[in-house]
Amino acid sequence: MTHDPPSALTGNRLTRDQADEIAHARSQPTPTLRPTVAAVEALLFQPLPVLDHGFVRVVDYMGDDAAVVQAARVSYGKGTKSVRNDEGLIRYLMRHWHTTPFEMCEIKFHVKLPIFIARQWIRHRTANVNEYSARYSVLDKEFYIPDPAQLAAQSDSNRQGRGEVLDGDEAADVLALLRADAERTYRHYQTMLNADEAGAALDPDRQGLARELARMNLTLNTYTQWYWKTDLHNLMHFLRLRADDHAQYEIRAYAEVMVDVLERWVPMTARAFRDYRLDAATLSSQAVQVVRRMLAGEPVTPATSGMSAREWRELMTVIRPE
Amino acid sequence: MTHDPPSALTGNRLTRDQADEIAHARSQPTPTLRPTVAAVEALLFQPLPVLDHGFVRVVDYMGDDAAVVQAARVSYGKGTKSVRNDEGLIRYLMRHWHTTPFEMCEIKFHVKLPIFIARQWIRHRTANVNEYSARYSVLDKEFYIPDPAQLAAQSDSNRQGRGEVLDGDEAADVLALLRADAERTYRHYQTMLNADEAGAALDPDRQGLARELARMNLTLNTYTQWYWKTDLHNLMHFLRLRADDHAQYEIRAYAEVMVDVLERWVPMTARAFRDYRLDAATLSSQAVQVVRRMLAGEPVTPATSGMSAREWRELMTVIRPE
Amino acid sequence: MTHDPPSALTGNRLTRDQADEIAHARSQPTPTLRPTVAAVEALLFQPLPVLDHGFVRVVDYMGDDAAVVQAARVSYGKGTKSVRNDEGLIRYLMRHWHTTPFEMCEIKFHVKLPIFIARQWIRHRTANVNEYSARYSVLDKEFYIPDPAQLAAQSDSNRQGRGEVLDGDEAADVLALLRADAERTYRHYQTMLNADEAGAALDPDRQGLARELARMNLTLNTYTQWYWKTDLHNLMHFLRLRADDHAQYEIRAYAEVMVDVLERWVPMTARAFRDYRLDAATLSSQAVQVVRRMLAGEPVTPATSGMSAREWRELMTVIRPE
Amino acid sequence: MTHDPPSALTGNRLTRDQADEIAHARSQPTPTLRPTVAAVEALLFQPLPVLDHGFVRVVDYMGDDAAVVQAARVSYGKGTKSVRNDEGLIRYLMRHWHTTPFEMCEIKFHVKLPIFIARQWIRHRTANVNEYSARYSVLDKEFYIPDPAQLAAQSDSNRQGRGEVLDGDEAADVLALLRADAERTYRHYQTMLNADEAGAALDPDRQGLARELARMNLTLNTYTQWYWKTDLHNLMHFLRLRADDHAQYEIRAYAEVMVDVLERWVPMTARAFRDYRLDAATLSSQAVQVVRRMLAGEPVTPATSGMSAREWRELMTVIRPE
Repeated sequence: MTHDPPSALTGNRLTRDQADEIAHARSQPTPTLRPTVAAVEALLFQPLPVLDHGFVRVVDYMGDDAAVVQAARVSYGKGTKSVRNDEGLIRYLMRHWHTTPFEMCEIKFHVKLPIFIARQWIRHRTANVNEYSARYSVLDKEFYIPDPAQLAAQSDSNRQGRGEVLDGDEAADVLALLRADAERTYRHYQTMLNADEAGAALDPDRQGLARELARMNLTLNTYTQWYWKTDLHNLMHFLRLRADDHAQYEIRAYAEVMVDVLERWVPMTARAFRDYRLDAATLSSQAVQVVRRMLAGEPVTPATSGMSAREWRELMTVIRPE
Repeated sequence: MTHDPPSALTGNRLTRDQADEIAHARSQPTPTLRPTVAAVEALLFQPLPVLDHGFVRVVDYMGDDAAVVQAARVSYGKGTKSVRNDEGLIRYLMRHWHTTPFEMCEIKFHVKLPIFIARQWIRHRTANVNEYSARYSVLDKEFYIPDPAQLAAQSDSNRQGRGEVLDGDEAADVLALLRADAERTYRHYQTMLNADEAGAALDPDRQGLARELARMNLTLNTYTQWYWKTDLHNLMHFLRLRADDHAQYEIRAYAEVMVDVLERWVPMTARAFRDYRLDAATLSSQAVQVVRRMLAGEPVTPATSGMSAREWRELMTVIRPE
Repeated sequence: MTHDPPSALTGNRLTRDQADEIAHARSQPTPTLRPTVAAVEALLFQPLPVLDHGFVRVVDYMGDDAAVVQAARVSYGKGTKSVRNDEGLIRYLMRHWHTTPFEMCEIKFHVKLPIFIARQWIRHRTANVNEYSARYSVLDKEFYIPDPAQLAAQSDSNRQGRGEVLDGDEAADVLALLRADAERTYRHYQTMLNADEAGAALDPDRQGLARELARMNLTLNTYTQWYWKTDLHNLMHFLRLRADDHAQYEIRAYAEVMVDVLERWVPMTARAFRDYRLDAATLSSQAVQVVRRMLAGEPVTPATSGMSAREWRELMTVIRPE
Repeated sequence: MTHDPPSALTGNRLTRDQADEIAHARSQPTPTLRPTVAAVEALLFQPLPVLDHGFVRVVDYMGDDAAVVQAARVSYGKGTKSVRNDEGLIRYLMRHWHTTPFEMCEIKFHVKLPIFIARQWIRHRTANVNEYSARYSVLDKEFYIPDPAQLAAQSDSNRQGRGEVLDGDEAADVLALLRADAERTYRHYQTMLNADEAGAALDPDRQGLARELARMNLTLNTYTQWYWKTDLHNLMHFLRLRADDHAQYEIRAYAEVMVDVLERWVPMTARAFRDYRLDAATLSSQAVQVVRRMLAGEPVTPATSGMSAREWRELMTVIRPE
């Protein structure tokens, strides 16, 4: 078997072997009675690029918008008689937090992502995961190196956010350190394993450290990959948190690609998701009072609002954006 | 819209409308790139009869044996190069409790079942469920009446099991009571709702009790139905407990039909499941010692075994069945 | 052992034996280093009445408001240095959906409730449940019979809600049917079991049907009971849905008692829960636009709002209640 | 506020501040009516050392052996009347996989562990977790450096295991690389953050990279910490997999300390866990046949066993250990 090293990428993310496997899989349609979504079939198996070496591939899916309706009705056939009724029901379910019908659709992704992002992602527990095993196999030599436009300073106002982009010299220094440290720790990983990229011993007189130990020398920007499968309800919960402005840029980059997939897969559900989740706003008890007073014509100031300065600012971005 | 009452069953479980909807759904194959299992397609949507009025319908599925292998390898295409390797890997995963690759397949059933069985079933929490709503709709007039061969006396030896079949007179009395009470409580349910089976008011001067209240008058053998979706790992966990001899007959009847579905859907996984779960035996620490002593030629008696009488009997059925 | 029948209730919900067991358990404090909440200790083990025969008993709890803070900080001792900071952090966590620290507190209830309500309740899967087994034991003769004030007609406007209270005659008829059917089916349950309330055979020549079968003759308003344990985050999720106006009255009755428990147990968290969940309002994307236009002085009508009539009414109850 | 650097450890794992907080928390017992376990109170809050810098601290617990019995019986007071009956019931529940009563006890740990082990650990999804945030805070300068006795070569026979210990020179080289790379990447982490250990700017003219980005330069043996809470059933599931010989040594080191905690907390449950899980053996369908034939006096060889060579070896270690 020939083995193309990761540097010989086809279409920039894949080895020739990988690209061939995907092309092969895409060449063999079979008939099915199950619900089928043409817009997802069109992108099935193909890597959607994210960050510098990552990707999201849709590997399989179950159900469509009509399957949500069908489950809500516990019906024997399709959902309602008309597409218009289907969308009305889906919007009703979304608005009133009837979440179980959305759990009746399922999607499976193959994702390649940096380890420090994988550690955030895995906190969403209601999903099935199979990660590439660094106990069993050797990790590829691929690290996330941010684009300079993403190299932000620590935020002054938000303990867990980013502020302005680093200026040129500091950014260059950071990138140089990230690259050099990742390269060096990976080279030492190979030294400890006593194996080159093709798996041959570097030194016939060494034993080579166990893979499950050697991996500890790698940096957190090393790429890993996994199969990740979840239902439509939990996917939307993930996207609501991770496609949000407060999410770290690197995971948001994945979430945004997955929102695109959502829109192709279940367009009615995706529209309802935007209207009642992504672009919706939750007003606290105090904020509701403020809005009522304002609408009744009463001038309300931060001081008379009963809200903290921070909550006041948050409310203003909702009701009075520039 | 014409409405066939439940008595006009086609194929014994369905109204004509329902049968037509299923026939319609089965008439429209579409091409897909996803893994497809011909043996499941063949039975898709069709009710598999269980008990007197119940059924199990496979409504959708995701993945196949190869998808388990593919996830275990986090691969870009199919799993291994050969079917023989696939089965070997699946058996290895099953034997060593590497359960996550089995979570990568999913199946969705439509099930019709008596409420008292639904209450056992729902205790399996790792599944998605949409039940027919008796707040929103009126339940059909269908009750589970056991076959006389299943009308067993309380077991003498097992606090939660069945003993011998009731003798003829007692059985006849029980059946008569079950039928009469179910009929009467259902009739009073209609009286409280002030609605006949077609939904028309029985008495124009009555208001009719809210459905969410009236349902409380029904007996626990009334049939309900739901969409139930789970992954392959959790399906096998369910089947291991519910296809077991200790399970109540009525839920076992469903589990056995679902084991048949499992064998059609993922035959390699189903074989491994039989060998390492269904037909396997777990020996306690004490039982292991007893077997070792016996194999070393030492006579071991219940008294010298260090086991309770009950555990001794359980061990004997494993190692010395007649 | 003397066995007081359920009719000999002490304090209306308990037999003397049960009341004695609880009094005994409450008589034996022991010292602990764990966080302790005096207001919960004061009601520990004691039944808080719900509906006609039901109750909620707090059986155990873990953690308090400070434990939420401690977990959020992953601290070695208490949370922050001041109570004021603790409340600020708790409100921040609630507002921004940082839910994991709330999962670090746990509470365990013993609940007695009608079966048709148990079937709604169990749909909340993220909890631990042990239900009284009707395969193993005989259920008590206790049924939920609604108070006439709760006997509502089916709502005209809401397919799954209640409308006006039934008028006197119709209500009396319903209550008579409910009582008679529950009494009769329970009596036949005993006949099938061939056992009186003390467990003695009614007829020495009958075998008695297995308990796991006989139970199917009971009506859905029969009381069952269970131990139910959940974490603080999932408790609040349950309460948000079940203490809501849209919830069925009977489960809301339980939820309201549990909101009281919440306020005693974790008062800071309970206040934040009210402000950011129970008394908060979510505005859809369309509703946000309407509020912005109104605040900018533009007259907005249902016709120019871009919302459905129903959503418009829902928004008006938020921003312009009478 | 004075800040003791991690080098000023008290009792080798804690700063003086941390040790003082723990001593303070241990100085304030309060009375409770809840079940209390003296053997757990004795070690509450105190770090139990694991690996070179890690620890496990029991932070809180709910329930005891009697609480398992109480839940199984859905009782109003304590479980059974006698301790002997309690143990019998617990063993019965364990043997027959009645797992829900064990879910009624809960335990909360504070754990300090290397990131690559945290990534294994987090795969157990049925637990609550709060991890120290490297978006919000700066990680301490602490790395796991294995003891030379643990520096094993890759196993020849097991793709994901360890073989013999590395010889002295190779071991020394590995340790030197691990130390140097961890030190260097941590130093560069500080450079990127532009912060020394006390948080002061290293260079007043630099902005300092956002913490959520800088962390990606750290190696996977860096220590992290979290609060981890789970119920008794899921704790035992975790321990069964992670205290097993096949588990990686580093996570097994944690699991073994937690097995000790289990034995102090719920001694009856811990004994049943050993007998029916940890020290039990599962025989496949084929292995059961082999044992039956052997006990019937038939000589069985690998060739006539119907088992693979590997499964035969596994069976022999169960029934004929040397």
